[in-house]
Amino acid sequence: MIKVSVVGATGYTGEELVNILTRHSGVKITSLSAVIDKPTNISEVFPRFKGKLDIICKGLDVGEVIKSSDIVFLALPHTVSMQFAPEFLKRGKKVIDLSADYRLPADVYEKWYGKSHTDKENLKKAVYGLPELYREDIRRCNLLANPGCYPTSVILAIAPLIKNKAVELDSIIVDSKSGITGAGRKPSIGLLFGEVADNCKAYKIGSHQHTPEILLQLKNIANRELDILFVPHVIPIRRGILSTIYLKQKEKITQKKIDEIYRDFYKDEYFVRFFGGETMPELKDVIYTNFCDIGAKLTKDIIVVVSAIDNLTKGAAGQAVQNMNIMCGFDESEGLIYL
Amino acid sequence: MIKVSVVGATGYTGEELVNILTRHSGVKITSLSAVIDKPTNISEVFPRFKGKLDIICKGLDVGEVIKSSDIVFLALPHTVSMQFAPEFLKRGKKVIDLSADYRLPADVYEKWYGKSHTDKENLKKAVYGLPELYREDIRRCNLLANPGCYPTSVILAIAPLIKNKAVELDSIIVDSKSGITGAGRKPSIGLLFGEVADNCKAYKIGSHQHTPEILLQLKNIANRELDILFVPHVIPIRRGILSTIYLKQKEKITQKKIDEIYRDFYKDEYFVRFFGGETMPELKDVIYTNFCDIGAKLTKDIIVVVSAIDNLTKGAAGQAVQNMNIMCGFDESEGLIYL
Amino acid sequence: MIKVSVVGATGYTGEELVNILTRHSGVKITSLSAVIDKPTNISEVFPRFKGKLDIICKGLDVGEVIKSSDIVFLALPHTVSMQFAPEFLKRGKKVIDLSADYRLPADVYEKWYGKSHTDKENLKKAVYGLPELYREDIRRCNLLANPGCYPTSVILAIAPLIKNKAVELDSIIVDSKSGITGAGRKPSIGLLFGEVADNCKAYKIGSHQHTPEILLQLKNIANRELDILFVPHVIPIRRGILSTIYLKQKEKITQKKIDEIYRDFYKDEYFVRFFGGETMPELKDVIYTNFCDIGAKLTKDIIVVVSAIDNLTKGAAGQAVQNMNIMCGFDESEGLIYL
Amino acid sequence: MIKVSVVGATGYTGEELVNILTRHSGVKITSLSAVIDKPTNISEVFPRFKGKLDIICKGLDVGEVIKSSDIVFLALPHTVSMQFAPEFLKRGKKVIDLSADYRLPADVYEKWYGKSHTDKENLKKAVYGLPELYREDIRRCNLLANPGCYPTSVILAIAPLIKNKAVELDSIIVDSKSGITGAGRKPSIGLLFGEVADNCKAYKIGSHQHTPEILLQLKNIANRELDILFVPHVIPIRRGILSTIYLKQKEKITQKKIDEIYRDFYKDEYFVRFFGGETMPELKDVIYTNFCDIGAKLTKDIIVVVSAIDNLTKGAAGQAVQNMNIMCGFDESEGLIYL
Repeated sequence: MIKVSVVGATGYTGEELVNILTRHSGVKITSLSAVIDKPTNISEVFPRFKGKLDIICKGLDVGEVIKSSDIVFLALPHTVSMQFAPEFLKRGKKVIDLSADYRLPADVYEKWYGKSHTDKENLKKAVYGLPELYREDIRRCNLLANPGCYPTSVILAIAPLIKNKAVELDSIIVDSKSGITGAGRKPSIGLLFGEVADNCKAYKIGSHQHTPEILLQLKNIANRELDILFVPHVIPIRRGILSTIYLKQKEKITQKKIDEIYRDFYKDEYFVRFFGGETMPELKDVIYTNFCDIGAKLTKDIIVVVSAIDNLTKGAAGQAVQNMNIMCGFDESEGLIYL
Repeated sequence: MIKVSVVGATGYTGEELVNILTRHSGVKITSLSAVIDKPTNISEVFPRFKGKLDIICKGLDVGEVIKSSDIVFLALPHTVSMQFAPEFLKRGKKVIDLSADYRLPADVYEKWYGKSHTDKENLKKAVYGLPELYREDIRRCNLLANPGCYPTSVILAIAPLIKNKAVELDSIIVDSKSGITGAGRKPSIGLLFGEVADNCKAYKIGSHQHTPEILLQLKNIANRELDILFVPHVIPIRRGILSTIYLKQKEKITQKKIDEIYRDFYKDEYFVRFFGGETMPELKDVIYTNFCDIGAKLTKDIIVVVSAIDNLTKGAAGQAVQNMNIMCGFDESEGLIYL
Repeated sequence: MIKVSVVGATGYTGEELVNILTRHSGVKITSLSAVIDKPTNISEVFPRFKGKLDIICKGLDVGEVIKSSDIVFLALPHTVSMQFAPEFLKRGKKVIDLSADYRLPADVYEKWYGKSHTDKENLKKAVYGLPELYREDIRRCNLLANPGCYPTSVILAIAPLIKNKAVELDSIIVDSKSGITGAGRKPSIGLLFGEVADNCKAYKIGSHQHTPEILLQLKNIANRELDILFVPHVIPIRRGILSTIYLKQKEKITQKKIDEIYRDFYKDEYFVRFFGGETMPELKDVIYTNFCDIGAKLTKDIIVVVSAIDNLTKGAAGQAVQNMNIMCGFDESEGLIYL
Repeated sequence: MIKVSVVGATGYTGEELVNILTRHSGVKITSLSAVIDKPTNISEVFPRFKGKLDIICKGLDVGEVIKSSDIVFLALPHTVSMQFAPEFLKRGKKVIDLSADYRLPADVYEKWYGKSHTDKENLKKAVYGLPELYREDIRRCNLLANPGCYPTSVILAIAPLIKNKAVELDSIIVDSKSGITGAGRKPSIGLLFGEVADNCKAYKIGSHQHTPEILLQLKNIANRELDILFVPHVIPIRRGILSTIYLKQKEKITQKKIDEIYRDFYKDEYFVRFFGGETMPELKDVIYTNFCDIGAKLTKDIIVVVSAIDNLTKGAAGQAVQNMNIMCGFDESEGLIYL
């Protein structure tokens, strides 16, 4: 049994991570920590775990986590992960970081997150944890940067078209609709039921911090510069991201060719399901699952791609466990086929 | 034009109050105040008011409010209203308080709200603002204690049966289902969309602070002691309270007699609509209105009464304006027929 | 008092129309009709009208409607309106049609709605009822084609930029998010709460029947050919459309210039509110109102325009009454300022 | 591998049943049938099954089901199950019926469901499938009557108090709040998102068809006559039932004694979790699970019991699989621990 710890267990991502790990046949949760008033059984913090998991969640004790774990999941806010990751790595632990701290070059990080990067050493070795693109690197890494929710939904959606040079690279428009748990579990007027229900809004138009992460990964795939306009929206649901992406075809393409590109690109991927151009994916079919569903429809010269994921599963905790499975040699879907 | 001020304009109740007052043909809003970072136009705080209301909301300046107002609405948290009401009253203003500060005898207040009452003088003169019961007192009062949302939904629902001695008084059970705006607009984990959506729960069983307010008013109607069990629930909606109330018939009664009791009791009331025993009221027909809809069905020896109100309108701001209309001699429904 | 009839009173649009008309100081509702099992008081169909409106809704009797009305509102499905409008017009009634039957040239209509147009005579005289564009024509018309909900949200959003030749006309992308009442009140699996809640999807990508209506109106403004890609989505709310529109600037433009264009274009319009480029409109500020809120933000060379309306109000019944107000010489906002 | 068929696979219960069965390590789904336009892959009916289950759903062919199955699940409307069950039983199949057809004596059934019972023979042998009460009978049965959703939430909630003679039996009041999927997946105005969202209502007060089922089971436990008043409500959620139950203590009881009664009654039950009197269960902790969470709080002389289940899981499909596990000798929670 692999021993795992979750640091930051009381957020929405932490909760989902703990939930998935309790179902995993090859791991044992050995410690849970969080910023918390006093040590509390996780089944009191989240009564859903009553009878399923009996473990105290308390303030982080780095030494104890080191002693008791093989793998450390960091489900922490941005800028906090990089304070703790170095010590865990130094002591030989594998670290899976769900924050943005190890996803970007230091200069880009500092520009978008407004903080200096304090662990440039490890940053260089971190692997970006999108299994469909970097499975072999993931297998060998010790520090895994788990992708953001929006980037997962966008990169998986259009990687095949970009890889196949089927689309123009300077006019990609991404219109994403997200559930509110993506904003975290923190007391804030903007996240209240009274503000979010019966509402819909765009926010951070062209300036969302996930923009550089999307750009960086797409550039790697394209092997050249490109540009996107990313416009996120909040819709009144708890979980899920539906991204609608508008791309201009490069040369005349057919729906048949588009279908082939996607089917070929994802032919060995269990967690990506391609729907073709007629039926478009809906959030109801992916929430509480680790699937990314994709449809792509040609309309005159614009290809409209729609992708659907659960932001807490494939967009965070589920993908983190998928990565752990690869890093530890488990079956890649272990613990992840549950709904 | 009557000049009105709203103190506490940035909560859900304050927002609704401002909204209703902007539609009122006989008043002019002269000042808005709240705990707020810096003076801000109310149409920036709530963009819905853009083009409809152009007034700065700022920290409370008692002197300025006194100078500019005939009537002061206090949409403040409990225990805060009684700090400011005395000064406004002393200076001859009429005060309509939407908090619980002037609804209960001092000793009861102190027991349920955990604070000493600091304005017992004015407390004695305050009138409980349920127009259907106390219209004449309201007409003459200077300090109006606007009822709580749950009490409004419960008292209106069963006053006719109690007044007519039709039911047992020692076994009244109230099961209320409320939208979340009743809990206010404050940053709190429990009020997040992520916690409230797809959820339903009971809370404060038998210990909710609105219990003594309901008891006091029912006793006044019954003219003797009685007891209730009040169990509130939160359901995933923004606005509305549906109360289902279980009463034991005293002597053999008929549905026809029940219908007569209600029809007679509310025959001159515009804002109370009685549905009989076949069709039960639904929240969708009262939200965004000042109506209280009531159904009452006899089943063997239990009478099941269902009432529906909008917690922010008839349960707070709408009723406050209805009271102001009575206090100032306006038509009682002025500003209140809008949806 | 103007006498008005509503044909098709039991749909969501009909309900909202009746609701607005009951508040209107200058009209009297003289008949309500619908496909209905048996004549039923409208306050039984919609209990929200109890105590506010006491009128029987029954199957359409054309003669009776003609006898009792000055104005006839047709809140009917597409292809049904044109069966009845000719008779009403022949008998000198003013007709306000909320269906698509009089919005498009016959050939375009037949292509997109799959039916022959059976009233080409009157079609030629119909005026498209977007007051912000055609107020003078509306004032004189007898047959008004009330705009679709999506077209209203899109045309108002970008008319200023197109009129001012500020944007490219061959690459306009419209990503709309709509509440479900836009699909009507009919028994259908796809409209069930169980299918719509916790869900979001794109539908009819590039093939929605509102596309030619948007195109036609934009061409009129541009005075030349253009093209759009219209992609509607359903989000889990009852009311509201948020449209996010992506336009390429034609020549180098500034945010300041964009702001001027919008402020100038809508300077005399009460029901259109421009928010600039910093704050974007949210649905919560327009639902249950007749406002169209618009924001427009320049990002590199793409202008992102966001508009928010209530699909049943400014997108249907509210706009229909606004048009009636113009046609009858009422104040344009009579009956329409209510929330 | 046990071979199982699902008859009625396209409703909400059928969908959930198929979902759970795909996760079950000991069964193989061999046929799916439903009233359906034409044979269709289940992954087209419900895209969530794409990549997980590849089987055609078609109109029922009794002979084929008999040939291919060991166990037949009937997820059919009431009165339809009893048309097909006899043939399956005659051919030696085990039948798990999720309708009400085998839950009640024929005369009671006919009174509440308005139809004659056409299979009284098998009705006598049917076992009521509440494992916490009838595990041993279930183990040996061939025809299992799977309990209704409301009855499951009520019987489990109060069986311990009734068994222990702790409460009066003539004044039990049950106030249940249910998600809308309990009403099935059928085209009906009352089930539309536009009618259910932002709404809450009571319905079938004292006359819901689940009343006799609850009564019958409680009488069996009490071993004498008793009475309940059952009042169901619809709240705007997809899944879940929260039942709040009011019982009068028989003799003076303490919270401690109540806790003991529940802890003892459910000490060996994995799927029932008792919360005591302080924390009450919430729907969010049970939806998508097979758990029934219970809290019981003493307030003066009334014991308030709150239970929470997922109506599609413990209230239908999950419990059906739990019963199959018992009938077939699988671990009782096989396939059922997934969220």
